[in-house]
Amino acid sequence: MYFPSWLSQLYRGLSRPIRRTTQPIWGSLYRSLLQSSQRRIPEFSSFVVRTNTCGELRSSHLGQEVTLCGWIQYRRQNTFLVLRDFDGLVQVIIPQDESAASVKKILCEAPVESVVQVSGTVISRPAGQENPKMPTGEIEIKVKTAELLNACKKLPFEIKNFVKKTEALRLQYRYLDLRSFQMQYNLRLRSQMVMKMREYLCNLHGFVDIETPTLFKRTPGGAKEFLVPSREPGKFYSLPQSPQQFKQLLMVGGLDRYFQVARCYRDEGSRPDRQPEFTQIDIEMSFVDQTGIQSLIEGLLQYSWPNDKDPVVVPFPTMTFAEVLATYGTDKPDTRFGMKIIDISDVFRNTEIGFLQDALSKPHGTVKAICIPEGACSLLGKLRLECADLLETRGVVLRDPTLFSFLWVVDFPLFLPKEENPRELESAHHPFTAPHPSDIHLLYTEPKKARSQHYDLVLNGNEIGGGSIRIHNAELQRYILATLLKEDVKMLSHLLQALDYGAPPHGGIALGLDRLICLVTGSPSIRDVIAFPKSFRGHDLMSNTPDSVPPEELKPYHIRVSKPTDSKAERAH
Amino acid sequence: MYFPSWLSQLYRGLSRPIRRTTQPIWGSLYRSLLQSSQRRIPEFSSFVVRTNTCGELRSSHLGQEVTLCGWIQYRRQNTFLVLRDFDGLVQVIIPQDESAASVKKILCEAPVESVVQVSGTVISRPAGQENPKMPTGEIEIKVKTAELLNACKKLPFEIKNFVKKTEALRLQYRYLDLRSFQMQYNLRLRSQMVMKMREYLCNLHGFVDIETPTLFKRTPGGAKEFLVPSREPGKFYSLPQSPQQFKQLLMVGGLDRYFQVARCYRDEGSRPDRQPEFTQIDIEMSFVDQTGIQSLIEGLLQYSWPNDKDPVVVPFPTMTFAEVLATYGTDKPDTRFGMKIIDISDVFRNTEIGFLQDALSKPHGTVKAICIPEGACSLLGKLRLECADLLETRGVVLRDPTLFSFLWVVDFPLFLPKEENPRELESAHHPFTAPHPSDIHLLYTEPKKARSQHYDLVLNGNEIGGGSIRIHNAELQRYILATLLKEDVKMLSHLLQALDYGAPPHGGIALGLDRLICLVTGSPSIRDVIAFPKSFRGHDLMSNTPDSVPPEELKPYHIRVSKPTDSKAERAH
Repeated sequence: MYFPSWLSQLYRGLSRPIRRTTQPIWGSLYRSLLQSSQRRIPEFSSFVVRTNTCGELRSSHLGQEVTLCGWIQYRRQNTFLVLRDFDGLVQVIIPQDESAASVKKILCEAPVESVVQVSGTVISRPAGQENPKMPTGEIEIKVKTAELLNACKKLPFEIKNFVKKTEALRLQYRYLDLRSFQMQYNLRLRSQMVMKMREYLCNLHGFVDIETPTLFKRTPGGAKEFLVPSREPGKFYSLPQSPQQFKQLLMVGGLDRYFQVARCYRDEGSRPDRQPEFTQIDIEMSFVDQTGIQSLIEGLLQYSWPNDKDPVVVPFPTMTFAEVLATYGTDKPDTRFGMKIIDISDVFRNTEIGFLQDALSKPHGTVKAICIPEGACSLLGKLRLECADLLETRGVVLRDPTLFSFLWVVDFPLFLPKEENPRELESAHHPFTAPHPSDIHLLYTEPKKARSQHYDLVLNGNEIGGGSIRIHNAELQRYILATLLKEDVKMLSHLLQALDYGAPPHGGIALGLDRLICLVTGSPSIRDVIAFPKSFRGHDLMSNTPDSVPPEELKPYHIRVSKPTDSKAERAH
Repeated sequence: MYFPSWLSQLYRGLSRPIRRTTQPIWGSLYRSLLQSSQRRIPEFSSFVVRTNTCGELRSSHLGQEVTLCGWIQYRRQNTFLVLRDFDGLVQVIIPQDESAASVKKILCEAPVESVVQVSGTVISRPAGQENPKMPTGEIEIKVKTAELLNACKKLPFEIKNFVKKTEALRLQYRYLDLRSFQMQYNLRLRSQMVMKMREYLCNLHGFVDIETPTLFKRTPGGAKEFLVPSREPGKFYSLPQSPQQFKQLLMVGGLDRYFQVARCYRDEGSRPDRQPEFTQIDIEMSFVDQTGIQSLIEGLLQYSWPNDKDPVVVPFPTMTFAEVLATYGTDKPDTRFGMKIIDISDVFRNTEIGFLQDALSKPHGTVKAICIPEGACSLLGKLRLECADLLETRGVVLRDPTLFSFLWVVDFPLFLPKEENPRELESAHHPFTAPHPSDIHLLYTEPKKARSQHYDLVLNGNEIGGGSIRIHNAELQRYILATLLKEDVKMLSHLLQALDYGAPPHGGIALGLDRLICLVTGSPSIRDVIAFPKSFRGHDLMSNTPDSVPPEELKPYHIRVSKPTDSKAERAH
């Protein structure tokens, strides 16, 4: 039997994959087949002292002299030692003869998770001792020399089975948690998938990777933006929530096709499964319409999709906002399963049941139901998901974890009534969204009813992307900002001016990379696909961030800390 | 004659290039040959309404029906119109017959820099009217339909010849400046070169692209770090100057080969040709030594180097810090020309010239000179460059702008005396730099004399990269931080702890991307290779950044602005 290592398959696709198990382990049959089969495997041992990785050795290496570097995974009876690197595990025979006493001493005394370098020969395991569950299970290393590169103190927890640890402990010792198979896999898959996206955008479709500033100016209504004090008294930069303005200005600048793997910032205080900084695949194109962006993204996901999943089927289905609300009671439905909401008003049109009659007598009044084949439930909207939860706890598998069900949602409303003052309007997404071509006249008569050219991409019930065709006409943009939204136009004067100087029609999209990778890897949290995430309170538990700063370091920025007690003291004066 | 467009050559290398001229123009013979010849040209017109780009049309397209989108570059006698997109220029014939009156009206009335869409047939120009200076000069477009996509107001300046405008004006209207050939070229070359670097690192050598946080904690002595107030009173994040700590922690985490095109921040106030945010190619490897990193980087630059330059020759020469200082009077010498400093002490050993005798009698006293072949100058150190300036103004070409002369500088001192208190030590680079293997004993006897395993990469007199082998031993790191540098070890306790848990030997490097691209493109300033740079005062002149913030937006962050006048008022109390 041949067991290729998981890593080489991450880079080079082989035959059709085995289905994903929920608990992958080092060197198990679990394969990640990310790349096309034409792709060569990278040279993982170039420029370094090792000749091979631990995980790559096979019978084909028999007789070779190798030098390996890795961590001591475990040791048995001072006879065998299992060495681990990012690529997998290999068994090392600890020499027992007198002449190799110093090598034996090093390998027997080094604590688990110490780093060692060994040189020796690849030999086959004695007949009957092969381990078919281990990719390197046909061979072992007969060691000649060994060196302790760094000893390890007693660990706060074992590296394996990281899911069993508390998350706070994992975050505090993130550098140890990163040694786990799951984190190695998640971060490497993320890197590979982004690389494939870059190849698709840059090499196949002529997109230009352009970096935009993160020290910018606050946007109107950008209350969730972090501030960065400057050395000018009272002047602040702000960390933008997205490169929205810049990417539109790039289109005005004739850059034509822009993309960026963009760091974005949003200060939402404590919210579970959100990060103060996050990453989006940010895209903008000139001379494009909604279907153009949709085809581009479908191709992007198809091209970059890991090979160990079922291939992405395109085009994705499309539903309007009105349709998804009616059918699923949400604008980001999980379309892996049915249980659609069905309008059964007609059935009850002549009912005498009081509350139904009452409902039907109201404007837009309907009676709806969810149909669950072989199910026991009639709740609506959000309740559909609760039903699914309930059914799954009872053993009815509705949401196949290996299934990826994409959906475009289109024709969103352009405006929503403001929460604080429902007679005023706010943008449903952002003020640069173009109105639906059929609804432009409504802007001047019934703006509330105007639909937009915004589109969302939904995957398994999660919004993983959103974008729109933008307004490229300065006059229309000014009318929407000033007249309809009553925004301070001065703060956006540069953008309005830019639209006046020959802005091309343009549109774009942003994909939430953390969420996407989280879904692809089946991780319980986006923190599992980020190397150094913050806790849900926005803390880095490893380094104690954020931290206090000596007052003298605040001086150049002309700011002072006003603690809650300070203002009380002030009032007392 | 065949004139391929500059853009297709940026993506697909052709025959050996024509030497770079200093003033490239649209569609000139100036070629940028970035990619290998096997590479396909991207599809620039996928997903959009145009069928072709303006710049790609040739005789081979004769008879084809095309749809083009672009900006009106200029118009002649209401007969010809030249349309421009990012790929180049094409001539459009304005129809004169009555039946096409509406098309004529659109094309004749639209101001220059308006955006139009035209459909028509590719025809050959009448004999004698071909323009061999124009890549599309053999053909023109016979228009059938035209649409004005957006009209342009009167521009504040002409797009062409951007170098003639003041930089403040260029930065204020950056979106117009970006339409210039030079900015299009610089940003596209940057994108392509970074893409090639990614292919080399990720696909050829198994590096993992990992994003590290930018909201971190201030580093000891990190006085140049921007602060970001958090919602916890008195607690701040800080924007790090580099991912140094994170990349070392990734090595402890077994990620083995990390890279990132990393956004970094440094608040140096007003300094010419520095940016508050900048980009570095950030690299770290486990189990590597200095020569391994050097070979990796030599290969990286060779692989990603634009095809229109002379190929990069490897290995790069290496000099020690002591040697470069003695030979060039600087640690970042411009090695494109000679004029080395030569020790001529022996010649004057028996001199009676007072000041020379005086100099030689001092410890380490020497007499040195610069030898300029056919030159008229004897200044030293920095003066060497001034000599070069002087000589070049007199027509002696010393620094060939097409020559790229790389140099490794190694064996830097590990410590320097502190400026404020020369009896104390500070790190010459950073406190994680490993000492030179031959000098470890000096740490305990004469630390001032210890050399480090730091290396700098110098290109044409500019430091474009620097790195080191790091300390992986917790005890040694603690000794250097606490005993020698007298730093607050608590702030780095997470890193010290990480080294205790089986940290592998590791090292890395960071390349300054902005500076590198600036040198490759021969740009006068790094602002010319950044899409939206800040002015040297750290301002975005387009959007008026940084800007003031209403006091209520400061409240959630528990800070108040303390203007210079406020503190005076305080004292008056």
